[in-house]
Amino acid sequence: MERTAVYPGSFDPITNGHLDLIRRGLNVVDHLIVAVAINPAKTPVFTLEERLEMIRRAVGDNPRITVDSFEGLVVDYLQRCNTHILLRGLRAVLDFEYEYQMALMNRRMDRKVETIFMMTGYKWFYVSSRIIKEVVFSGGTVEGLVPDFVNQKLKVKYQQSRQKKI
Amino acid sequence: MERTAVYPGSFDPITNGHLDLIRRGLNVVDHLIVAVAINPAKTPVFTLEERLEMIRRAVGDNPRITVDSFEGLVVDYLQRCNTHILLRGLRAVLDFEYEYQMALMNRRMDRKVETIFMMTGYKWFYVSSRIIKEVVFSGGTVEGLVPDFVNQKLKVKYQQSRQKKI
Amino acid sequence: MERTAVYPGSFDPITNGHLDLIRRGLNVVDHLIVAVAINPAKTPVFTLEERLEMIRRAVGDNPRITVDSFEGLVVDYLQRCNTHILLRGLRAVLDFEYEYQMALMNRRMDRKVETIFMMTGYKWFYVSSRIIKEVVFSGGTVEGLVPDFVNQKLKVKYQQSRQKKI
Amino acid sequence: MERTAVYPGSFDPITNGHLDLIRRGLNVVDHLIVAVAINPAKTPVFTLEERLEMIRRAVGDNPRITVDSFEGLVVDYLQRCNTHILLRGLRAVLDFEYEYQMALMNRRMDRKVETIFMMTGYKWFYVSSRIIKEVVFSGGTVEGLVPDFVNQKLKVKYQQSRQKKI
Amino acid sequence: MERTAVYPGSFDPITNGHLDLIRRGLNVVDHLIVAVAINPAKTPVFTLEERLEMIRRAVGDNPRITVDSFEGLVVDYLQRCNTHILLRGLRAVLDFEYEYQMALMNRRMDRKVETIFMMTGYKWFYVSSRIIKEVVFSGGTVEGLVPDFVNQKLKVKYQQSRQKKI
Amino acid sequence: MERTAVYPGSFDPITNGHLDLIRRGLNVVDHLIVAVAINPAKTPVFTLEERLEMIRRAVGDNPRITVDSFEGLVVDYLQRCNTHILLRGLRAVLDFEYEYQMALMNRRMDRKVETIFMMTGYKWFYVSSRIIKEVVFSGGTVEGLVPDFVNQKLKVKYQQSRQKKI
Repeated sequence: MERTAVYPGSFDPITNGHLDLIRRGLNVVDHLIVAVAINPAKTPVFTLEERLEMIRRAVGDNPRITVDSFEGLVVDYLQRCNTHILLRGLRAVLDFEYEYQMALMNRRMDRKVETIFMMTGYKWFYVSSRIIKEVVFSGGTVEGLVPDFVNQKLKVKYQQSRQKKI
Repeated sequence: MERTAVYPGSFDPITNGHLDLIRRGLNVVDHLIVAVAINPAKTPVFTLEERLEMIRRAVGDNPRITVDSFEGLVVDYLQRCNTHILLRGLRAVLDFEYEYQMALMNRRMDRKVETIFMMTGYKWFYVSSRIIKEVVFSGGTVEGLVPDFVNQKLKVKYQQSRQKKI
Repeated sequence: MERTAVYPGSFDPITNGHLDLIRRGLNVVDHLIVAVAINPAKTPVFTLEERLEMIRRAVGDNPRITVDSFEGLVVDYLQRCNTHILLRGLRAVLDFEYEYQMALMNRRMDRKVETIFMMTGYKWFYVSSRIIKEVVFSGGTVEGLVPDFVNQKLKVKYQQSRQKKI
Repeated sequence: MERTAVYPGSFDPITNGHLDLIRRGLNVVDHLIVAVAINPAKTPVFTLEERLEMIRRAVGDNPRITVDSFEGLVVDYLQRCNTHILLRGLRAVLDFEYEYQMALMNRRMDRKVETIFMMTGYKWFYVSSRIIKEVVFSGGTVEGLVPDFVNQKLKVKYQQSRQKKI
Repeated sequence: MERTAVYPGSFDPITNGHLDLIRRGLNVVDHLIVAVAINPAKTPVFTLEERLEMIRRAVGDNPRITVDSFEGLVVDYLQRCNTHILLRGLRAVLDFEYEYQMALMNRRMDRKVETIFMMTGYKWFYVSSRIIKEVVFSGGTVEGLVPDFVNQKLKVKYQQSRQKKI
Repeated sequence: MERTAVYPGSFDPITNGHLDLIRRGLNVVDHLIVAVAINPAKTPVFTLEERLEMIRRAVGDNPRITVDSFEGLVVDYLQRCNTHILLRGLRAVLDFEYEYQMALMNRRMDRKVETIFMMTGYKWFYVSSRIIKEVVFSGGTVEGLVPDFVNQKLKVKYQQSRQKKI
């Protein structure tokens, strides 16, 4: 049976940790929808269009991967995608508890939804979009932790943010 | 693509928590091999044959489930089964860290192995084979937490253990 | 001896998890004061009056329960209530550490204060006011996780928030 | 209403951490039953009689405290004591998860049972019977962490264990 | 060999927990640089100058301690200080995971950087700048948890914040 | 000032994770004593002599490293070594709590003792002597996770254990 999973996230920006999980996910399902979750309450560093474009460029031309975005509940989005499998990465105990609660809540809203968790490779254990941004906006480099072109874009954002201050 | 996952464990005995995970696993892969891991260093309450029989009876006649046992490394067993997907349940933070380390170690021994984790339903959050045995061997009942016939077998084991003492 | 405990919280809004804890608390003490903590630094979804009214309606007419609110330190409020017992719910490891630190701090400010923790029932393990609001404001339903009339009020707040945007 | 709580444990031996919790417990309930749980699967350092005697001596002559022992399920013992309140100490995250599972399990066996948790004072944060024994049997002293006479008895046990080896 | 460690933090304000760690750090290295990290994204209660002055006054006249501030990456600051040792305090599991990720990230940016962690004394287990401020701004006292003159300054800030509201 | 730290452990056997920590420790102190803790209650796979020899071979000829063993309390051993610095590795939350308790206990026995923790490199995050032995005794290989000659010795132990069974 052909199976599709949705891998939702902010991807602000996509990191090598995300890409590792996408590669692993494709070892378990046939098709993966990498879906940027639009959260009106947050102010991302990159616009939705920038984030979608970066993901598309990072995953390349792979017929088994779709890049998309959605607003609202992920369980509703799953239904629109005709699937019931949610893919999530786990790195740390702090992730774990929140993810557990969300997995139970999603299942309550739609009994068919199954969340599968995969552990991020140890190389990316300490890589999150949040830490990536913290480092770059303190003047550091994240080479090797994100795709090269993402690194370039981060540097540009950093320059722009410095000029605004002046 | 047809996909098979191995769900290894001691199953000493099988609980409703395990059965919940088996049902969920079948929503994600096509075929599931429930595999009793033989650990010569441990002394289980039920013999290997008893454990296999209880699992078979609990899962019933389902062409998508195979019940089996193995000794040695789970990554070698996966290879013999012609698959690379390992299914594990997660309930608590204490599970999480050990499982993370084992997932990394298994991947190191065989780069193709992918472990997928699914969260046990909240109803079975507090159910483990260990607690089940603790309760029964203190004279308590675990009705509703294990299949009825497992409950009967646990009572018999408990009676036998009490007679031995006298 | 008659004993009273204070059960403080934001209750923004009250959930079935809170109500479960209130019921349990009454199995341990004679009188319970459910007290909305006023935090000037936070912007709740419901006004203080709305929150008090929802709690009153949810707990019904029970002579053993008082619904109240307070500003400032909970240890001072306990003194005004002529009691020294604080009731808190525990759900997860993340709660645990913060609650431990607060219990030690409260005890330091008033040596007589004792915090008793009760575990939320597993059915409400994943229910918090925060997740309830996240789900509703993403367009989901929380039926069965909060009292029905709270569910209605949440829907109204959600409609209002959408109209504001337009 | 008069209320009684059962505080179960191995008490092998009783520590100042236990005594702190007993003192706190008496601020919340009227009567406390300190109950040594007999676990046939474990080999304690002190016999049941020694443990009971040490607890009795440590708590002194207090009409609000009963010292007792029980075998089997704590929920059955609670029933025999005509109460439904269980008192447990919490120190660390590792305690927390096991205690949560046990609280849910006990409640399942008897819906009336309520477990209340109190946090051990920070002074006793690192004191457990296990660590106390580890230190003493490595030749260290635990003065100030257990009552003085317990310290003496531990030293005697240590001497006896050394003579056995020779 | 003479060794210097950098102990970075917000110190908003310095607490007895920080001072305990500084004292301990001096038992392990020869020279300690207590460095206020300037974070433009945060709004501290005390200005940089106030924080520096409070630290200086609290540590007193000690030739082995330097008080300083820095902006940007701590690894760059280490280099400017001609050292590679970072000192951090650990209190809780929640600290632990974030600190682990930061330690790995810092090491990635500069392979020579070593982070050493020391555990805060149990007396200060529940003391953090955040909780200190929460208590003071709710009208409580933190006497004995911060140096006396810091306590005075906190009271002044609290009075000022109340007058602003009126 | 010249500083020496003691790095105690079972080292049954030494792994690349231990060696990583030894290398890091030498970036922080001048001299390191790698000390096998003799625990009469445990049955190690390797004898004390084997473990000492393996450590010596693994660390090579380094005048800044001493390899030794001790029985009893580590705080007493520190005193005999004329130092007060204890070095410990941290990998996971489970380690963290136990290590915290031990650090507090050691400090209680000797106020001068300071424990410094260093985080194991992410590459060795999942490597512990226990998992190494589990893998080898299940027929797996741990090449690259321990020094090559340790790998050889583990294989010999595994062969011997299999012949004993037959």
